[in-house]
Amino acid sequence: MSTYGERIKLTVFGESHGEAIGAVLSGVPAGYKIDMDKVLVQMARRAPGKDKTATPRLEKDFPEVKSGILNGVTTGAPIACVIENTNTKSKDYSNLLDTPRPSHSDYTAYVKYGGNNDIRGGGHFSGRLTAPIVFAGAVLRQILEEKGIKIAAHISSVADVNDKPFNPVEIDDELISELNNSAFPLIDKSKEKDIREVVENARINLDSVGGTIECAVVGMSEGIGGPLFEGIEGAISKAIFGIPAVKGIEFGSGFNGTLKRGSENNDAFEYKNGKVVTKTNNCGGILGGISNGMPIIFRTAVKPTPSISKEQESVNLKTGENTTLTVKGRHDPCIVPRAVPVVEAVAAIAVSDLLLVN
Amino acid sequence: MSTYGERIKLTVFGESHGEAIGAVLSGVPAGYKIDMDKVLVQMARRAPGKDKTATPRLEKDFPEVKSGILNGVTTGAPIACVIENTNTKSKDYSNLLDTPRPSHSDYTAYVKYGGNNDIRGGGHFSGRLTAPIVFAGAVLRQILEEKGIKIAAHISSVADVNDKPFNPVEIDDELISELNNSAFPLIDKSKEKDIREVVENARINLDSVGGTIECAVVGMSEGIGGPLFEGIEGAISKAIFGIPAVKGIEFGSGFNGTLKRGSENNDAFEYKNGKVVTKTNNCGGILGGISNGMPIIFRTAVKPTPSISKEQESVNLKTGENTTLTVKGRHDPCIVPRAVPVVEAVAAIAVSDLLLVN
Amino acid sequence: MSTYGERIKLTVFGESHGEAIGAVLSGVPAGYKIDMDKVLVQMARRAPGKDKTATPRLEKDFPEVKSGILNGVTTGAPIACVIENTNTKSKDYSNLLDTPRPSHSDYTAYVKYGGNNDIRGGGHFSGRLTAPIVFAGAVLRQILEEKGIKIAAHISSVADVNDKPFNPVEIDDELISELNNSAFPLIDKSKEKDIREVVENARINLDSVGGTIECAVVGMSEGIGGPLFEGIEGAISKAIFGIPAVKGIEFGSGFNGTLKRGSENNDAFEYKNGKVVTKTNNCGGILGGISNGMPIIFRTAVKPTPSISKEQESVNLKTGENTTLTVKGRHDPCIVPRAVPVVEAVAAIAVSDLLLVN
Amino acid sequence: MSTYGERIKLTVFGESHGEAIGAVLSGVPAGYKIDMDKVLVQMARRAPGKDKTATPRLEKDFPEVKSGILNGVTTGAPIACVIENTNTKSKDYSNLLDTPRPSHSDYTAYVKYGGNNDIRGGGHFSGRLTAPIVFAGAVLRQILEEKGIKIAAHISSVADVNDKPFNPVEIDDELISELNNSAFPLIDKSKEKDIREVVENARINLDSVGGTIECAVVGMSEGIGGPLFEGIEGAISKAIFGIPAVKGIEFGSGFNGTLKRGSENNDAFEYKNGKVVTKTNNCGGILGGISNGMPIIFRTAVKPTPSISKEQESVNLKTGENTTLTVKGRHDPCIVPRAVPVVEAVAAIAVSDLLLVN
Repeated sequence: MSTYGERIKLTVFGESHGEAIGAVLSGVPAGYKIDMDKVLVQMARRAPGKDKTATPRLEKDFPEVKSGILNGVTTGAPIACVIENTNTKSKDYSNLLDTPRPSHSDYTAYVKYGGNNDIRGGGHFSGRLTAPIVFAGAVLRQILEEKGIKIAAHISSVADVNDKPFNPVEIDDELISELNNSAFPLIDKSKEKDIREVVENARINLDSVGGTIECAVVGMSEGIGGPLFEGIEGAISKAIFGIPAVKGIEFGSGFNGTLKRGSENNDAFEYKNGKVVTKTNNCGGILGGISNGMPIIFRTAVKPTPSISKEQESVNLKTGENTTLTVKGRHDPCIVPRAVPVVEAVAAIAVSDLLLVN
Repeated sequence: MSTYGERIKLTVFGESHGEAIGAVLSGVPAGYKIDMDKVLVQMARRAPGKDKTATPRLEKDFPEVKSGILNGVTTGAPIACVIENTNTKSKDYSNLLDTPRPSHSDYTAYVKYGGNNDIRGGGHFSGRLTAPIVFAGAVLRQILEEKGIKIAAHISSVADVNDKPFNPVEIDDELISELNNSAFPLIDKSKEKDIREVVENARINLDSVGGTIECAVVGMSEGIGGPLFEGIEGAISKAIFGIPAVKGIEFGSGFNGTLKRGSENNDAFEYKNGKVVTKTNNCGGILGGISNGMPIIFRTAVKPTPSISKEQESVNLKTGENTTLTVKGRHDPCIVPRAVPVVEAVAAIAVSDLLLVN
Repeated sequence: MSTYGERIKLTVFGESHGEAIGAVLSGVPAGYKIDMDKVLVQMARRAPGKDKTATPRLEKDFPEVKSGILNGVTTGAPIACVIENTNTKSKDYSNLLDTPRPSHSDYTAYVKYGGNNDIRGGGHFSGRLTAPIVFAGAVLRQILEEKGIKIAAHISSVADVNDKPFNPVEIDDELISELNNSAFPLIDKSKEKDIREVVENARINLDSVGGTIECAVVGMSEGIGGPLFEGIEGAISKAIFGIPAVKGIEFGSGFNGTLKRGSENNDAFEYKNGKVVTKTNNCGGILGGISNGMPIIFRTAVKPTPSISKEQESVNLKTGENTTLTVKGRHDPCIVPRAVPVVEAVAAIAVSDLLLVN
Repeated sequence: MSTYGERIKLTVFGESHGEAIGAVLSGVPAGYKIDMDKVLVQMARRAPGKDKTATPRLEKDFPEVKSGILNGVTTGAPIACVIENTNTKSKDYSNLLDTPRPSHSDYTAYVKYGGNNDIRGGGHFSGRLTAPIVFAGAVLRQILEEKGIKIAAHISSVADVNDKPFNPVEIDDELISELNNSAFPLIDKSKEKDIREVVENARINLDSVGGTIECAVVGMSEGIGGPLFEGIEGAISKAIFGIPAVKGIEFGSGFNGTLKRGSENNDAFEYKNGKVVTKTNNCGGILGGISNGMPIIFRTAVKPTPSISKEQESVNLKTGENTTLTVKGRHDPCIVPRAVPVVEAVAAIAVSDLLLVN
């Protein structure tokens, strides 16, 4: 369906080397001012061709808004954006028709669509489809900010190099603003050199690395979400797994929390400035599927880019024989930095939908 | 909403100390034989009162089927099941009205429902609500098995004691059957003693422990799922986070995979008996959101039970003052063993829905 | 699916001669007092066995509330109700297994469910399934009334005998209250005698008659609904066609309006007591799919009961031959009076969902 | 939401005088050839500026396909189409900001969107938004035809001039093909003159007329749909009410059927060429919400165009005073002929979704 949400509905379309990609964002309330420059900042953070850690494919990624915003203000009608594909080198992908790339969608898409899918550049499965997602998130974030809700993410780790985590009980505005505007968002900037090294090392070995991204939603009002299948974790996770290459998500202390005892993992309540808060935030701001007013914090695992230039074992679907494959084309040795604004955008979409549903 | 699914729709109702809990399962195709004894086996695995690691509250958990099954065969109409609550000690919970238990839903439910929710035993947020989920899963598993799909889970870890993981490329029927019928499902049974020890140790310290559960769906046909928000990971994660206390999920190599290089994490294709398979299964059977025919494997984090008997810091919502709380009532020092059949059931529900949607 | 709604979700279950029928109503906000006596009044209006125009099958139709209401107040959890089937004479229906009743669901259900559906009394297709719908509507109406929204319907016609229509611009509370409590709701009560005559005449001829029901939703706030597929007409119509035997719906001047010119059918605006109103209400309170604050008015067509005692032409699905059929069992010569509270209930469900969605 | 469907999801975007309108159609299976010339035929039937009964606004209505179709074959990815708005005269609408047109969406949109909606040409409420709907329907019809399903509609009436109805039990291919290619589709072509006269008469009186459209879906397989809220009537009606100006729908004998006795309205079964058919088709091909294999037939009421050039009573929302309004701009004195391909398209969308859901 390529569609997410109940009251905010995002529909993504396009294929990597087709004419255009884009999104329709329905359900956005009328009357909100949208600063298109701020949208472009987010688009630029995700756009390729800017950093040595990423694919050299250069795309302007300019979102043409076709409807839903009039004189810079939301009209209440669906917001449609179209992003033309300008820099496509399609012949690079010709050999993938028969020989699927390991750990990419080529094989499963072939099965599902009977070979009719657009294989060029990964088609509808391409990471390029995250551009319209970032557009949608960048619009919604501005509305969330008017409600006092801010979202920030950072590179939590690349391979075995770790950034410092968020302070889960207090995240200050300055840090958020800094991360929101960074192309290589880290809390501890001294780690940038190590991370670039590990990525460069993979690149020159025709290989790739993965990592994790930590995201915080600050200012979320209490009482949003619900029990069982109505919970915030389920809503956010469904959205986050919509990002290609994401293979895991954890909220609060997550997997690590399973090593603690209840007495250590439980978050004690206390009054602070007349407001109920928790002293720690191992629950990631969510209890019983419902926000408790503390920052919502989750961490997501991004697998090492499957498109590597090393020779790999595969099969020839036409001849039915085992074969080897050397992937051509332009690839990211590490997509984690470019995925950070995508995670923020998806969080904005999920949270906006949750707020309208509740 | 307490509802999950598109073509298979599960609606769960009930409150822990109310008259009854239950479920309506819509969309189940007609004509399938359901062996109610097999359903009762699964209900019994989850039911409390049987094991020292769990709450001593004894419930028969007998599901009365009110519709949708006639002479043991599905009719195509919604399957409704009602489970009476028989063993309730409601006065245990009286002090929680004002003083929420740390890391439980008491506080957020209070905010969302304005104090009108049924607080007794956690009300609609109680782990008891997983009983009708197990019922629904136990019905659907029988239909999946007719299609050659089997589901098994095991205690992957409790605190820092780990079970052996599944062999992700080949899981034999015998192991599945053994796990499916066990109240303490482990691949390496020699770990049972250590796990019981770590739980007992927590219990006598009025504390609790958490753990992880690994689940495999074997025999899933290729080509199920889809790109972006239509992916299998999103569908399963949304369902799994519907289980109280779950705080994380990872597919295949998951978080661990972020420490590998692409060349190590990628799963090489090869032909085996004329069928395309992968030599490893770091993707957890899912590429581009779509099943590749290998076992679907995921691991989920279950936090330490928040209801512990130790004194904890909390607040008095009536007086607006900080206070302490000693939780009374009967609790599980570790819910992981009882959560295993719940994870299997939820996987069955998610997979059944995916199959009908595709 | 037997499910309706987005934010208020109604799930209906049961089969006419099964153990029980019932409903789960999710999404009802917490903190509303529900007067169960008022619910029983609505259940009684629909219940069979009370009037010569209806089937003599006597059912108590007592809704046992299993969850979601505590001490008479909604808890925010799903409200589950179970109605036991007590008065079933199942052998009456044995010959329908092979020989479907004309214009009933027997044949299409046989095709869809491969003969596994519960044929007794129409199974899940029975008009009896409207009892839990009335329950749900009766709960929601009390909440709507707290918001100043009232719903009333009346027998608009039976065969060719017509009741007076609502005054579409002003419907007074007294009329609403009278209709809401009547088992034979008419605006012009002098028509009761004629209607009873036309029904009795059909009955003694082993035949049946149909009719229309007009329904008004008064006090609906302006601005609810939306353009295109988000419109009120679409939402209400989808719900209303969920009632067995409904074959048509029109809003405002409806089909009759197509005979008018624009200048006659358009509703002029004017200020009245500082509020924008329309002088006429040919649009049925809905413009561009959105409520304009005037009463929402629709009329629905109920076909003559297909279950008649006259001999009819049918087929024998086992032998593949044409045959005739004489339907046994107890039937309504006219279901229109009993369908009035059902239409009101469905309107309450649709309107409640619209209000929460908007 | 401007979105319809479960497995086939249509999302419509755009505003009448904005940059572009369009649609995203998700869920279309891969591998179907789409003849774009056939799509353009349907677009042309709906397009304005061609006939004296319609608005003189000339729009090319050329759908640019941005994704989902590669070399004329569906890829399985969402099909996105963009239609540029080329012929807009926006200043015509300036006075409607304060003074809403009677029976148009101006007032209710003003309330819902707080005056931020794009009022020009009706914005997102414009009949122009049916162009992308026709595009979507024209794509899906080609897929339906490969499955043996054809859809045809005709002008059933304009004001009091009636066309001959379909023969509900047998509709031949020639008639379908003729209607599908006509800009003024009638079964009895001799009625064209009378209809044009009644429209012209309204036009010269600065007025408008409405009418009805009858639609048939032929070749629908049996067993599609379901009981209660899963029924075909509900699905089609929700879609059809998505068309601006539609105020009623009836299936089979509909409202007229309420004047018949059961014995007259019931459709006798018989075997014909080894297949179960009905001798009449008063049920409109649907029993118990499920298709019985006969043509699905429905009739829909289209109100007289509310935009008329006559002076009308309205209010000034700024001054709070009653006023009069003379609508400028270009309008259709009768939209019924142009709405015929829209009804066919919507039927194609609803039926495609029903087929995939079942």
